[in-house]
Amino acid sequence: MAVYTEVNDEDLANFTALYDIGSLKSFKGIAEGVSNSNFLLETEAGRYILTLYEARTETAELPFFIALMEHLAKKGINCPQPIVQRCGKALGLLAGKPAALLSYLDGISLKKPQAAHCAEAGEALAKLHLAGQDFAMQRQNDLSVKGWTQLFNNAEMGADSVQEGLHDFIAAELEYLQKNWPQGLPNGIVHADLFPDNVFFLSDKLSGLIDFYFASTDMFAYDLAICLNAWVFEADGSFNVTKARSMFAGYQRIRSLSSDEHEALPILVRGAALRFLLTRLVDWLNIPEGALVRPHDPLVFYKRLRFHQKLKNVQELGLVP
Amino acid sequence: MAVYTEVNDEDLANFTALYDIGSLKSFKGIAEGVSNSNFLLETEAGRYILTLYEARTETAELPFFIALMEHLAKKGINCPQPIVQRCGKALGLLAGKPAALLSYLDGISLKKPQAAHCAEAGEALAKLHLAGQDFAMQRQNDLSVKGWTQLFNNAEMGADSVQEGLHDFIAAELEYLQKNWPQGLPNGIVHADLFPDNVFFLSDKLSGLIDFYFASTDMFAYDLAICLNAWVFEADGSFNVTKARSMFAGYQRIRSLSSDEHEALPILVRGAALRFLLTRLVDWLNIPEGALVRPHDPLVFYKRLRFHQKLKNVQELGLVP
Repeated sequence: MAVYTEVNDEDLANFTALYDIGSLKSFKGIAEGVSNSNFLLETEAGRYILTLYEARTETAELPFFIALMEHLAKKGINCPQPIVQRCGKALGLLAGKPAALLSYLDGISLKKPQAAHCAEAGEALAKLHLAGQDFAMQRQNDLSVKGWTQLFNNAEMGADSVQEGLHDFIAAELEYLQKNWPQGLPNGIVHADLFPDNVFFLSDKLSGLIDFYFASTDMFAYDLAICLNAWVFEADGSFNVTKARSMFAGYQRIRSLSSDEHEALPILVRGAALRFLLTRLVDWLNIPEGALVRPHDPLVFYKRLRFHQKLKNVQELGLVP
Repeated sequence: MAVYTEVNDEDLANFTALYDIGSLKSFKGIAEGVSNSNFLLETEAGRYILTLYEARTETAELPFFIALMEHLAKKGINCPQPIVQRCGKALGLLAGKPAALLSYLDGISLKKPQAAHCAEAGEALAKLHLAGQDFAMQRQNDLSVKGWTQLFNNAEMGADSVQEGLHDFIAAELEYLQKNWPQGLPNGIVHADLFPDNVFFLSDKLSGLIDFYFASTDMFAYDLAICLNAWVFEADGSFNVTKARSMFAGYQRIRSLSSDEHEALPILVRGAALRFLLTRLVDWLNIPEGALVRPHDPLVFYKRLRFHQKLKNVQELGLVP
């Protein structure tokens, strides 16, 4: 639940006056989101999302995210579009934080997506991968294999306090993945965080994608592996192979996976599970004093990783070779 | 930041299907509010606030609040109006909690209201008092003088841990107020919690009132005393007499205060300050495990109460006798 920064009346009025959007009609903090403060802002001209970028989002990287959303929107991806100030800038400063006004998207994120939704999510991910191909900027994915050692360093002291033996489990997995991580697969712009909360539906049809603040340049199949981890496990921890098949089918309606990508997927899904296990573990062990955000349970991704470790082939993952 | 209860897709769809409001377009948790869970819900028919009543709001009292909002809206007070289900009910059940769909009000609550806003708040409070006069239901104000002993019992053990000597200070004030609390003043429906977060403005004009869940039957002048405590102190703790005068003037443009009410106000403002000192103290000392809500600082109202204790006459409060 994310409103970390309070915005006072005068600062808000001064900020909105920089835009050609008329006078304010409504302003409410939104409980969704974890990293940044988000507000629903309405003026005579329409509705917007106002995002204040908190410390977790690197200010130097904001121009990448802004440019990417503009690029994707032009390519027909329904995603938030930065609104520019009269002076032409899309990034401003509000309450001491970098701030952007983004277009508002209709749609509802699903708590329990079904197989048909998974297919649509897969399709949208493939469209995003294609739409990003002629995007000129690049951004390294700090939360892929090269970043995990650093993440583990930040969490290893406390790992066994979360679950006995977790430290050694992660150390072994990390070593395995570093040795076996695939190279040279098709790559480009990835969303890198396409969980159900970041996908909107209208009457069961996918209507838009949000939250591009982990977007980066990485392997497409790794992005699909993240998506698979995020969408196809049930609340009881079981793997729903029907949903997985739907997601793969949806993806491949738009972009076919190569045989190298097929072969790499059992490793990539392990990597994706480890990435979220590690970041959640770091958050879990470093809850700031007075935090109003309850961190996600890291062990959810421990269990998903354990599932992936036991895979014998890609068919078990729902992929037809 | 208040979303205590998660609403799943199926429950939400079933709930909205009970209303004649078309299909869902958007659903977002709202960070404002403390007692209940609030969501912004949009359908083809318009925008609504969905409120899930959490344990703090007595289920048995919900019909009073719902009927009051309906009554006040008919009397021209711009306040949320309960939307009724096809079967005629305004109260439903969602995710195991009593739930109501309310009309959405445009407007912004001010962080730093100015004197002109205080005048408008006073005026709106008086209009509310008049509009409630022919409302048929009654509800005892549990947070007035008769309820304070119970509140103090819940907080007295920990009072000195918040500030040395606070226990004895409150005990003495409580005794004084119980002996001197006025009787027989004009009474009727009071809002009882008209803080700036519960008042909306559009272009500096008051546009609506929200959050009627403390509304009850009590002395009008006590409601004004609450409002005064809530609006006219500055962030540094100083009393802004200009704002107080504006609020009294605004109130009296609609409803004149009697000489008995004048005389009682120095006691009533002490009572109002004690009421919020006590409830905030109870909340401060009883933060539930894993709470995502940061309680308000109780000592803000200790300082306001200390100010009121030193008043020599009503002029110092900003009231012309």
